[in-house]
Amino acid sequence: MGALGASCRNCEMCCQDLEAYCSEKVFTHGSIDKHGEPTQGGFCDLMVADEHFLFCWPENLPMDAGAPLLCAGITTYSSMRYFGLDKPGIHVGIVGLGGLGHLAVKFAKAFGAKVTVISTSASKRQEAITKLGADAFLVSSNPEQMQAAASTMDGILDTVSANHPIVHLINLVKPLGKFILLGLPEKPPELPIFPIIMGRKTIAGSANGGLEEIQQMINFAAEHNIFAEVEVIPIDYVNTAMERLKKGDIKYRFVIDIGNSLKSA
Amino acid sequence: MGALGASCRNCEMCCQDLEAYCSEKVFTHGSIDKHGEPTQGGFCDLMVADEHFLFCWPENLPMDAGAPLLCAGITTYSSMRYFGLDKPGIHVGIVGLGGLGHLAVKFAKAFGAKVTVISTSASKRQEAITKLGADAFLVSSNPEQMQAAASTMDGILDTVSANHPIVHLINLVKPLGKFILLGLPEKPPELPIFPIIMGRKTIAGSANGGLEEIQQMINFAAEHNIFAEVEVIPIDYVNTAMERLKKGDIKYRFVIDIGNSLKSA
Repeated sequence: MGALGASCRNCEMCCQDLEAYCSEKVFTHGSIDKHGEPTQGGFCDLMVADEHFLFCWPENLPMDAGAPLLCAGITTYSSMRYFGLDKPGIHVGIVGLGGLGHLAVKFAKAFGAKVTVISTSASKRQEAITKLGADAFLVSSNPEQMQAAASTMDGILDTVSANHPIVHLINLVKPLGKFILLGLPEKPPELPIFPIIMGRKTIAGSANGGLEEIQQMINFAAEHNIFAEVEVIPIDYVNTAMERLKKGDIKYRFVIDIGNSLKSA
Repeated sequence: MGALGASCRNCEMCCQDLEAYCSEKVFTHGSIDKHGEPTQGGFCDLMVADEHFLFCWPENLPMDAGAPLLCAGITTYSSMRYFGLDKPGIHVGIVGLGGLGHLAVKFAKAFGAKVTVISTSASKRQEAITKLGADAFLVSSNPEQMQAAASTMDGILDTVSANHPIVHLINLVKPLGKFILLGLPEKPPELPIFPIIMGRKTIAGSANGGLEEIQQMINFAAEHNIFAEVEVIPIDYVNTAMERLKKGDIKYRFVIDIGNSLKSA
């Protein structure tokens, strides 16, 4: 089961396999369920679920490293599929190399794209290229590098949730290109209208995919050996993990092993 | 001849009938031509043109009222065509009822859309509905009206060039809907990320269309009796017209009659 626990099953969105955009959707975490109770996601030990919202899990996909596919994975996969950034040979930029970003690199490479990681941290170059298989790396604070790469990308996924400007990033996108927001900064950035109009560029956002698409993504991940880089922790490490998350001290996702936590308790 | 006077004719954009997005394009006004001279657009009495950039003008389309089709007309027509807002039965919002906006209403109606005009001025209601044929009218400063219309539109064309926020306008668009910027405010608005991501909404910009598409638009306009509302002026009225433009004192476009100006001079 992923981030989505219920939806109306009847609206325009639900009928197009886009349950994530149903106005009555209930997330498995941080939502209120139909009994008025808060949903507890991965922090609960038991969950009663509607079978429509369950997935078949391939035997060769690890459960722990595969778990983040159901949120970070589908967010990146679905946005590339929906906005046509899943074509072999195109050039895709990934801004930020965190939980979303590192999966975005893996999926974009599996789709056959040329992938450039764009980061504020030059120190992530080796990780991006050697470990994750990106083709190129740009330091976003380096104006020469950014200028040299202007108008070279068909699309960009911006996965950064820290407040940041986007003008210099949109400049990397070709005319008719797409800039997809996946991170959730608290402070809205400025929208640079002139370059968007003169280049007929698209800025869009994307959340989760639909149930059918999530199953396709799981199967695709299993086939291409795609999973997240994770650190598996017991439930009693959660508060420490939250402190480390705040500091960005994790590559790339914590996964709580509820089963073994319960056993050892 | 329209706003576009030259392009490289060889790049990815030019080869797709998207000359307006060629990086070497030359506008017929306010650009520098290949001889290093400023282009003078409608203020000149003679122009040497490449035939690729000329159009056939249908006999039943008036030259004066048709002239703004070549800029305001194609900007609205092409954006609706390109972003799929040209389908019968969909609901399109038009923000602002000026030169661009009034043509957007006419084209959207001709495509078969339900058209709602959104304006800060309640006084434009009658003009929008009775004269231009819009189906509905919203006053953007009225929170009740705006809330009642939330998530009802498939797409919006925002034609306003005055500085303005867009958050409350994006709220009118359905999930998966499109918000197209056509006006050029000086101050970049805030980009509201959360609603864009949660509704998988698109914000995009659009400028001119390509040469082939402009000819299609001219033919379509002639067939559907679409032209601009204009005030025809002689060249020596230009400075007064500029003053009136600043005050918004024009419905909806000035057209300079160079031929008759020269004759009378």
